[in-house]
Amino acid sequence: MTKSFQSRVDKILKARNSLLCVGLDPDPAQFPRSFRSVAKAGATRKFLEGIIRATYPFAAAYKMQLGHYLSLGSEGLDLLARLTRRIGPTRLRILDMKANDIGNTMRFYQHAAFDVLGFDAVTVSPWLGWETLEPFAEDPRRGFFVVAHSSNPGAPDFQEIPTPRGPLWQAVVAEVKRLSQKHHNAGVVVGATYADAVRVARQLLGNEFPILVPGVGAQGGALSTTVREGVDARGRALLINSSRGILYASRGPDWATAARTEAERLAGQINQLRAGLRTP
Amino acid sequence: MTKSFQSRVDKILKARNSLLCVGLDPDPAQFPRSFRSVAKAGATRKFLEGIIRATYPFAAAYKMQLGHYLSLGSEGLDLLARLTRRIGPTRLRILDMKANDIGNTMRFYQHAAFDVLGFDAVTVSPWLGWETLEPFAEDPRRGFFVVAHSSNPGAPDFQEIPTPRGPLWQAVVAEVKRLSQKHHNAGVVVGATYADAVRVARQLLGNEFPILVPGVGAQGGALSTTVREGVDARGRALLINSSRGILYASRGPDWATAARTEAERLAGQINQLRAGLRTP
Repeated sequence: MTKSFQSRVDKILKARNSLLCVGLDPDPAQFPRSFRSVAKAGATRKFLEGIIRATYPFAAAYKMQLGHYLSLGSEGLDLLARLTRRIGPTRLRILDMKANDIGNTMRFYQHAAFDVLGFDAVTVSPWLGWETLEPFAEDPRRGFFVVAHSSNPGAPDFQEIPTPRGPLWQAVVAEVKRLSQKHHNAGVVVGATYADAVRVARQLLGNEFPILVPGVGAQGGALSTTVREGVDARGRALLINSSRGILYASRGPDWATAARTEAERLAGQINQLRAGLRTP
Repeated sequence: MTKSFQSRVDKILKARNSLLCVGLDPDPAQFPRSFRSVAKAGATRKFLEGIIRATYPFAAAYKMQLGHYLSLGSEGLDLLARLTRRIGPTRLRILDMKANDIGNTMRFYQHAAFDVLGFDAVTVSPWLGWETLEPFAEDPRRGFFVVAHSSNPGAPDFQEIPTPRGPLWQAVVAEVKRLSQKHHNAGVVVGATYADAVRVARQLLGNEFPILVPGVGAQGGALSTTVREGVDARGRALLINSSRGILYASRGPDWATAARTEAERLAGQINQLRAGLRTP
C-alpha cells in the first residue's frame, strides 16, 4: 500500500527534526553583489544551489514560487526540475503556484508539477469551486495545500466573507478536511499575520493535517504563537516558511554563511518553542 | 499618450470584424492521428502553428492556458514565446494563468507574461484580495481579465456567495470597473454556461469593458444569448472563446481545413447575431 502524503510529511519532519520550509523565491535585484555581473538564469542557479547547500541541514521543505521562475523563461523551468532533483526526496518539495482552473486543466498542472518538474506537493486556490480540487484529492502519492487564509493585507476581502459555515476561509479548511478523507493528501496555507487564524485552522483540522505558514520572518513576533498554536498533538504537521529572511540575509561575500546561520537560528528557535510546549 | 488597452481591444475587434478568441490549449492525446508518432513538444508546435494559420483570418484573439504548456516543461515556455511572435500584434494574445498571489509576486507574473513571453493580457484570480490586482491595474499598456464567474459546475461555490454588494462575482465585476478607471485596462471572464451572468456583467460594466466568455462551443445553445447580451452598445467589447471545438474539429488528415471551417462558421454566426441586433 502506498504511504499517504500526510504520513510522508510527518516522517520527513521527524527525521529532519525541523519544521522549517525555505522559500526559494529568487529576485535577481536582491542577489548578493558578487552575482551582479552574471547572466540572470546562471546567477539564479548558482545562488539557489548555494542556498540549498547552506540550509540543507536545517530545512524540512523547500517551496518554489512559480512566478519567479516563469520570469526567467524556459531556463526557469529547467532550473525548477534541476533544483527538485538536487534537493531529493528527503525534503519536501512544494511548487507554490496557487493553481485554479477547471478540472480538465488542473490535470495539466498536476502533470507539470509532479511528473515533469519533480515536486511532491503544490499549492492550489479554491476560487473556481470545490470540484476543481478533486483531481488533486484523487492522487494518493502527491499533496496539495489549499490557500485558505493568505498573509497579505487584502486577504480578508474574500477569505473572511461571512457564510453559514463561518468566515469563508474556515469553510475552505473544513472542505479540505473532507477532500482529504480518502487519501490523506491535503493541507492548508494559513498566514501567520492574522491573529488566531493558525489556531482556528488547527482546531478545525485536528492532528496530522499539515499547515503551511507564510508570513513569519520579517514579522518575527508571530513566530511563538504560530508554533504554539499551529503544531498538532505530536508537535508536528506544521511547516513555517521563510523566504527573503534567509535568501537575502547578506548581500556581501558571506551570503551563504549568513543564510545558513539564519536557517539554523530559525529552525532552532522553532524547536525551542516546540520543546517548551512539552514542559508545562 | 499611450493608447489604453481597452481601446486597443476595440480597434482589433473592429479591424478583424470578429469577436472570436481561439483557445490554443494543446492536449496531445487529442491531436490528429498524423501527429501521434512525433515527439510531444515538436508535435504541439507544428499542430498549433497549423491551427494559427488555419484560423488567422477569423480570429480576433488567441488565448493560451498556461498549464497545458507547463506540462511540456521548458519547451512549453519557448513555444509560448514563439507563438506570440508568430501571432503578432494584429490579434490579441492572452495568457490564461488565473494568477493570484501577493503583490510582490504578481510583479514576477507580469514580467513573465508581458516582457518574457510577449502577451498583451493575462487572466487573474481575485482570491487573495483587491490589492493583489493593483500591479496589473497600474500597467497602462497591458490588460488583465479578472475571473468573475467561471463556466464550470463548481463556479457557484464561491462566486455566487451572497454579499452586501450582491453575489460575490458581481462585487468582483464592480471592483474591476473601479480598478480600471485610471488606465482603462481591465476586463472580466464570465462563463456562457450560467444564464443571465453575461447580461448582468454587461449591465454592471457599461460600454468598452471587454468580457471574455468561455463555455460556448460544446454548449452552442448559449451562443445567441451570449452575443445578444454580451456586446456593448457598439456591438463589440466581447471575446467568445472556443478551444476544443476548433482545435479538435477533425482528427483526420483534414484537421487544418476542419479547424478553419469551424472558426469561419463560429465567427460568422457571431457576426450574424451581432447584425441582427442592429435591425430591430
